[in-house]
Amino acid sequence: MTKKVYLAGPEVFLANARDILDRKAALAREAGFTPLSPGDLDIEPTETKKEFGLAISAVDEKMMLEADAIIANLTPFRGIAADVGTTFELGFMCALGKPVFAYTNVAAGHYERVMEYYKGMAAPTDDGHVRGPDGLSIEDFDMIDNLMLQGGVERRGGKVIVGNAPADRLYTDLDAFKRCLAAAKEALL
Amino acid sequence: MTKKVYLAGPEVFLANARDILDRKAALAREAGFTPLSPGDLDIEPTETKKEFGLAISAVDEKMMLEADAIIANLTPFRGIAADVGTTFELGFMCALGKPVFAYTNVAAGHYERVMEYYKGMAAPTDDGHVRGPDGLSIEDFDMIDNLMLQGGVERRGGKVIVGNAPADRLYTDLDAFKRCLAAAKEALL
Repeated sequence: MTKKVYLAGPEVFLANARDILDRKAALAREAGFTPLSPGDLDIEPTETKKEFGLAISAVDEKMMLEADAIIANLTPFRGIAADVGTTFELGFMCALGKPVFAYTNVAAGHYERVMEYYKGMAAPTDDGHVRGPDGLSIEDFDMIDNLMLQGGVERRGGKVIVGNAPADRLYTDLDAFKRCLAAAKEALL
Repeated sequence: MTKKVYLAGPEVFLANARDILDRKAALAREAGFTPLSPGDLDIEPTETKKEFGLAISAVDEKMMLEADAIIANLTPFRGIAADVGTTFELGFMCALGKPVFAYTNVAAGHYERVMEYYKGMAAPTDDGHVRGPDGLSIEDFDMIDNLMLQGGVERRGGKVIVGNAPADRLYTDLDAFKRCLAAAKEALL
């Protein structure tokens, strides 16, 4: 039995989702894994839009329960942080005690991205935190995103791979994914 | 033994984090729960920033393992989606099979917020999806955020409470939290 790896990430939203998901799946197979993709859905029509969403949620969770490991694409999505569906899935797999791996296609870390979000308006305050003009403190832990994400991966012995894709290939460049797959292969196969 | 509820949310980043976390904890106690807050940390100094982040990750996960349930604040954080640390934690608790509850202080749903993010530049495409100018499809499932979040909660019988706080009390208004707490109390106590 080959090990199953769940390929989490925001690729499902791409115009060429099928193509990218297929390329990721093919690379996972080449590495020796059986890929499970959240886009591999065949869901019966439902009465309401919400029921359809609930049905996808059920299928994706079922795939995670079947999977032996996860590779999560934490590339920032519509903003400065990872896709929240993907981070839910990463937490899900961490709690199940399954091997977790992650990557991002953005080289700038969390602190750097949030500073840019505040366009230079963030500054240290008396309580020792750097805060934006909205008063929100900025995590500065040399991590790619919120500490629960990178912490969850690295504390379990997983790897977080940092890529640096050009802006026009933010979700389609597979270099960091390949390196992440190689790390998962070395650890698990 | 009273039931322990983990209070997940981005309040830890507020300038008045201690005050808000204490108020949420007091309300949880009034409802009959023992609150566990991710801000209740007492972590020894570490050599590096990253080690400190990893230590917080370990403490927060330990609290979740001790907790009997979670109430997650999914109010959009620095953008149009929930805080990724909170969504990781929601997924974590879903996988553990513990009761999950969530709320948001923003009345506009996911679809509406993403449409606003694209400032009218989103439109239906030939494949039946509505997409932004970046080609990314926009989920439209009558949900508050990504389907994995609301799906994970509601498929387990939990409640998602939708509030409508004024912009200047986005993270401090506790009306939706109180309603969420009441729903958790009714279900669990």
